[in-house]
This record gives sequence, C-alpha cells and structure tokens, in this order.
Amino acid sequence: MSDRHQVVILGGGFAGLYAAQALKRAPLDITLIDRRNYHLFQPLLYQVATGSLSPGEIAAPIRGVLSNQKNARVLLGEAVDIDPAAKHVSLKDGAAIPYDSLIVATGSQVSYFGHEEWKIWAPGLKSVEDATTIRHKILVAFEAAERTADPIERFSWLTFVIVGAGPTGVELAGALNEIANHTLKHDFRSISSQDARIIIVDGGKRVLATYPEDLSKHAEQQLCYLGTRVRTGVTVTNVDEDGVTLKTPTGEEHIAAHTVIWAAGVTVTDFARTLAKKTSATTDRAGHIQVAPDLTIPNFPDIYVVGDLALVNDKVNKPLPGVAQVAMQTGSYAARAIARKAQGRTPPPPFSYLNKGDLAVIGRAAAVANIFGVHLSGFIAWLVWLFIHLMYIVEFQSRILVLIEWGFLYLTFNRGARLITGVAANKSIGKPEPLENLGE
Amino acid sequence: MSDRHQVVILGGGFAGLYAAQALKRAPLDITLIDRRNYHLFQPLLYQVATGSLSPGEIAAPIRGVLSNQKNARVLLGEAVDIDPAAKHVSLKDGAAIPYDSLIVATGSQVSYFGHEEWKIWAPGLKSVEDATTIRHKILVAFEAAERTADPIERFSWLTFVIVGAGPTGVELAGALNEIANHTLKHDFRSISSQDARIIIVDGGKRVLATYPEDLSKHAEQQLCYLGTRVRTGVTVTNVDEDGVTLKTPTGEEHIAAHTVIWAAGVTVTDFARTLAKKTSATTDRAGHIQVAPDLTIPNFPDIYVVGDLALVNDKVNKPLPGVAQVAMQTGSYAARAIARKAQGRTPPPPFSYLNKGDLAVIGRAAAVANIFGVHLSGFIAWLVWLFIHLMYIVEFQSRILVLIEWGFLYLTFNRGARLITGVAANKSIGKPEPLENLGE
Repeated sequence: MSDRHQVVILGGGFAGLYAAQALKRAPLDITLIDRRNYHLFQPLLYQVATGSLSPGEIAAPIRGVLSNQKNARVLLGEAVDIDPAAKHVSLKDGAAIPYDSLIVATGSQVSYFGHEEWKIWAPGLKSVEDATTIRHKILVAFEAAERTADPIERFSWLTFVIVGAGPTGVELAGALNEIANHTLKHDFRSISSQDARIIIVDGGKRVLATYPEDLSKHAEQQLCYLGTRVRTGVTVTNVDEDGVTLKTPTGEEHIAAHTVIWAAGVTVTDFARTLAKKTSATTDRAGHIQVAPDLTIPNFPDIYVVGDLALVNDKVNKPLPGVAQVAMQTGSYAARAIARKAQGRTPPPPFSYLNKGDLAVIGRAAAVANIFGVHLSGFIAWLVWLFIHLMYIVEFQSRILVLIEWGFLYLTFNRGARLITGVAANKSIGKPEPLENLGE
Repeated sequence: MSDRHQVVILGGGFAGLYAAQALKRAPLDITLIDRRNYHLFQPLLYQVATGSLSPGEIAAPIRGVLSNQKNARVLLGEAVDIDPAAKHVSLKDGAAIPYDSLIVATGSQVSYFGHEEWKIWAPGLKSVEDATTIRHKILVAFEAAERTADPIERFSWLTFVIVGAGPTGVELAGALNEIANHTLKHDFRSISSQDARIIIVDGGKRVLATYPEDLSKHAEQQLCYLGTRVRTGVTVTNVDEDGVTLKTPTGEEHIAAHTVIWAAGVTVTDFARTLAKKTSATTDRAGHIQVAPDLTIPNFPDIYVVGDLALVNDKVNKPLPGVAQVAMQTGSYAARAIARKAQGRTPPPPFSYLNKGDLAVIGRAAAVANIFGVHLSGFIAWLVWLFIHLMYIVEFQSRILVLIEWGFLYLTFNRGARLITGVAANKSIGKPEPLENLGE
C-alpha cells in the first residue's frame, strides 16, 4: 500500500469499470472488486439466451481491460459488510479493505416481488448462467415438443411466455420469434417450429413503458407483425411447471406453457441493503439508494453510489432508469469528483444526466429508437442500434467478432451457439424441469 | 415410419455424423441419436479449456448440420440397452427404436484406471463441461496465487501438472505456457504469471508415443524451450488436493500443485459394455470392441461399430488410434456398406485405413506433423495444422470465426474467452475445490 489516496470500487459492470478507467491518469490507487472475473456487456445478454452469441463474446476479463492501467488492481471477491466510520469494507473471505473513497456499483438483481418460489420455473436474465439456463430451456422445449405424441403437451412445450415488456422482454420476444420462424425452420420432422406461440405479458398499459408513447406503439406493432402476442394490463398471480396464471380485467386466466422467462423486476444486492442500513440512507421499495446531487450518500461524502443501485432523479424529478448509459455517466462522474478531491481541487458541479436516447431491437431489421429526441423505428432504428452497441462493446476483439457473427446470422438465420450444456440432455426431455436441476 | 431400410446411428461425433452425411443420397431413413444436441469439434476442445475459443465456436447443432438432409432425423436421447435379436435399441426414457442397420459410434470417455477418486481433483477433457471446468480451475489458480500471502501456497497455486503426454496433454501444456508467459503477463500486481510451473508427466518413455520417434524428440524440445518441464517414465500413484504423487525410477516423489489435469486414459461408455455383452463381442482392456474386416460385430452383420469405440487393426496389426481421421473413415465406410446392402448390391471391400498423418500443436508457431510420411516440425508444421483444422470444422460459420479469433489471438496474445462462470468465484479462492462444487 502506498500513501496515495485509496479508491475502492465495488463492481465491474458499466458503472464500476467506467469509474476505474476515468481515473487512469489520476495519482491515486484503485482497487476494483468483483465477484466475477469478467465485465459483462449486459445489453446483449439476451443474444446469449437465444443462442446467437457465446458468453465469451459479450464478456471481457476485467484484468485484461485494466492490465495496462498501472494504478489499478483487481480483486476477485464479494463485499459483504462495511464500516463507514473505520472506512473499510469486508469481503466474504474475511479480508478487510480500507478506502479513502468508495464507489459502490454493485448493480441490481432479479426480483420476483416476494414470490421466490416462481424462480425455479421462470429464470431471470442477469448473469451468464441465467442466459445459458434460458438457452437450455428454449432448446429443450423444441426437443420435447418433437418427442411427445400428446398434442396438448406439445402445445405447452411450444408456448413461450415472457413476463415483463421492458427492453429485455421485448428483445427476448423478438429473438424467440426469429428462432421459431427462421433458425429452426428445417430442423424438426414431427413438429414445425413455426407453430411456437410467443406471448409477452405486462401489468402496465403498454410495452416499453419508459419510452415515448409513439415508440411503444411502433414496438407493439412490430412485435405483432413478427408473431408475438402482446398482453398488457394483466398481472401474473402464479407461475408453476404448467404455466402462468394471470389476473385480467375480465377475470382469471391460465396459459399452459412449459417455458416462462422472467423479465419483470429488479432489486438490489444484500451488500447494498447492509450499506443502506449502516449509513441510514433512504431507499425506494426495491432498495435503490437515494443519493445527494454529487452522488454521495448524505452525510458520507466519501461513499459514492453509482449505476443501477443509485436512485438519481432527472430534471423533471423522475428517477433515471437502470440502463448502461446512466451507469457509465454516474461512474465517470464519481471518478472525476474523487480525482479532484484527492488533488485538493474544487468539487465538480452536481451530476446531471445527458440522455442520449433509448433503443430496443425487436427483430430482424426492426427496432425503435429515441436519439436525442428524434424518434425512429424499423430498419433505420435497427442500424442505429447496431452501430451504438458495437461502439460500446468494451474489447476491440469482441467488437469485430460480434459484428461478423451478426453478419452471418443476418444472412443465414443460423444461430451457432445453440448448445444444450449442463445436465445430460435427455434427462430433461419430456417433463418440465425446475431450475436447480439444470447443471449449467 | 416408412417401409424403407431404417438406419439408426448412435452418436453425433465425427464417426456418427460422417456416417449420416455419407448416406445423404441413399434411399433409406436415418435416425441419429445423441445425448447432446451438438457435434463437438474435439480436436480443439483444449482451446476452450485454455480460454481462446468459446464452446459455441467449436460446436455445431446436429439438427442444423442435418437440417437439409431430408432422409435424416435427429433424436436427443441416450441409448441404454439393445436387443440384437429383435433389432431395437432402448433409450433412457423407455422408447424402443427399431433398426434394420445399426451404427454404433458412442466414442470414449475419460478413464482413471480404477482410481475414480482422483477425478474430483484432476478433471479430464472430453466434453464442453470438462473444458469450462478446466478453464475455471486454471483462472482461479492465478487469482488464488495473487491473493495468498503464503509463499508455499502461492507456489502450489502456480504449479500445473498435466498427466498424460499424448496429443491432448501436449497441446494443453503448450496453451498453458502461452497463458502464463503472454496472455496474463500484465494482469496481476502481486505475482508474475510467468512464475507458473507447467509439468507434464507420463508413464511412457517419450511424449506423443504413437508418433514417429524423431517427432516426439522435436515435440519435447519445443515444449522445453517454451517452458514446460517434461517428466517421462514416471507413474502417478496418487492425486489429491495437494498435488500428485509419482513413482519414479529413483523412488517416490510428491509435486505440490493445486491444478492437475488428466489427459491420460480412455474407456468406453456403459452402453458399449452392454452391447459387447449382448453380442459376446471381444473387447480389449479398455472396452473397445473388436470388429470384423467390414466393421461389423462378428455374427451380427447389421451392427457396425465405428470411431473410438472400434478396435480396428492396421496393416502391421497395431490398433488404430482414437483420432478424428479414423472416426471419419470408419463412419463413412459403414454408411457405404449399408447403402449398398440396402440396395441389394455387393458389399464393399474390407475397410482399410488411409493414414494421412499425425499432427500436434505445441505453442505459438510450434507443432509437429507427419503428413503422408513426411515429418515436419516448427512453423511449417503449425501452418499445416492450422489449415487442416480449419478445413474440417463442420460449419462454415465457425470456420471463419475461428480463423479470425485465432488471428487476433496470434497478434494480441489476448484470450477473450477466459470467463470464470458457475459458482460465485470467490467461493473457490484460497482453497482447492473438488470438482463437484464447480457449478458449471
């Protein structure tokens, strides 16, 4: 340990990594701590779940990203506790890591709104393991439909329900459509993959609720056109091996489906809850921590909260969404503030968010985009989406590879990464399988 | 079911897939059964284990490969029993699949020579899961070495023992060398990845024992030059969390190592043993089935055994090795024989193996090759290896992607696919972890 200012960053997602990189030239020491050894390009995780990309293509080893940044070291570990008075965090293995400034960027995780028992039948999509689990479930469903002689069972295997019509849900639905209607078209002999029913359900009034209304409308039209049934204004009241139960305006309804994917809610990590308690911070219902205008926790000027975990309001006092853009900007802001403080300079002006826009892809050459207030949809929006996502993929290598992979996918409809790994596949053919049994 | 000749193929490896494809234009029905939904390009599996390729890049969905072959259908399932009199095989889920001709291409699996208890400390390399497990172990070892303050522990974490100096062992050693000396060179702050010790041990007299002697010599020299210690003529007598115990000509010896990889022996699957029993076939000690000159089991002219599982002798009466070349040629031969039989034509002449040569890569631009009797080593051999492997990768898409991925790797030394997935990584930092706990 040198006597330089010690910055500890918890989390190597967009917020944490951008914070570390923004400190590259600052005369201080950085320790970035993450449970994983890789940064995950979350916006493309749905492409792993649907077999067009491999996990390695959307993940970059954190050590690799920071290997030439001499003032940064990387620790594989999980923060479990904090002592804000003594200024150190404790890791799961017992190590205590002291800090002068702390950046908390531990992100969010899937929430089942108190119904954790649904998890085994409806995996969420936050990690590489989640994505390969979903890939497994989707591919096995088609295999099981091919095998069964019972028409009702076959119908259940060919029905896919996505809970939540935010960007993740919409993008998953689009990719599933493409799998059913193109990728697997010639692969089966007893079924037609085009018989698959894809249903997206949401409690809200429209898909992509955080987007401008006209784009929601466009997105819904494109989803419909590509073959997804959109059910808004319905609430999920149960999920089990036979499907989902909905509360609709006209009463209760059951959708028989062996594949349910959860894209509905988020909550914070256990560490974030501990942090909020120890600092008496204000949180919202999901646990997001309310921060001061400089992104610190009130009364704790050395603790910055950034990314998905932070509850930051925009100019019209609406909370900012949990997207990569917000994470990058809050991460960089905290880094700049710390660098100035460590050098005895004046603090920067309060954080303000520059909204570059929103983007969601719905299928082949179909997307909606709101770029600096300009609303686009269809092919143009899809090209914008392509360009922006490629520019932001962290590693140069991945960027080129992903582009080429997509080029092939676009031309051939072929998804190379559709592997059923983990448990021996035939164990799971023929009957729905709870999540714990998937060995991936 | 039509009344055409029914061919059932067990296994979608090189032998099974080549058999199916060789029957493309034959007027018969093919059912290919595999436990996995993908064909695995086994010769490159060590590259997944060492983080340069993702599983999706060396696997092709079997349905995708055969989607345009109208006479073939694919079943995801595992054969567990056979009734050679009634001519049907039974799958694990109870289904009975009748056949007119059967091609058994179930391959081989890792054998610990009766010491199954070593498996949890020394994973083998046969499946995608094996490869990601090894990748996990290697990456975690460097992480643990970075974390520990104890110099003896650090030494154990930085010692990698590979048991078996056949092609797999040699190629793994070469890739590990490159990881330690190049890829991770700038990634750590407390250790130098170049301190890693890589040791390859084998009971035989030389590495690559099935290769011509001069090439073994070359391979050993190149391994040495790149930094691997080669220990031949030593037998492993124990493997546990602390390392391996060896019997050497001068007595017993212990190598302290937290990472041991098993590349030593193979055996056959349970189904193959059942098949041998039901047909009273002759087997060798590992369970390989002795076949007639037309690759059928003596007295069972409708059951062909091909690939790794078959015990076929070459012209000088030595058994053919378990390599992709032999699998492809035996698979195609069985297909041709069946097609002729089904059409009432004369059987083909007895199987004879055309040995195109042997190839093993030892590191960056370092390899040994025996091509139609011409012995090559170094850069030329490496180019030959590159060319041949790319030509044989089943799917066009993968072929291009793999080439590009290798191009980047060669130029940048960067291995993009070095992900620690499965269990939360910090669970396994600091103490060796038996295999069952790896959640991949």
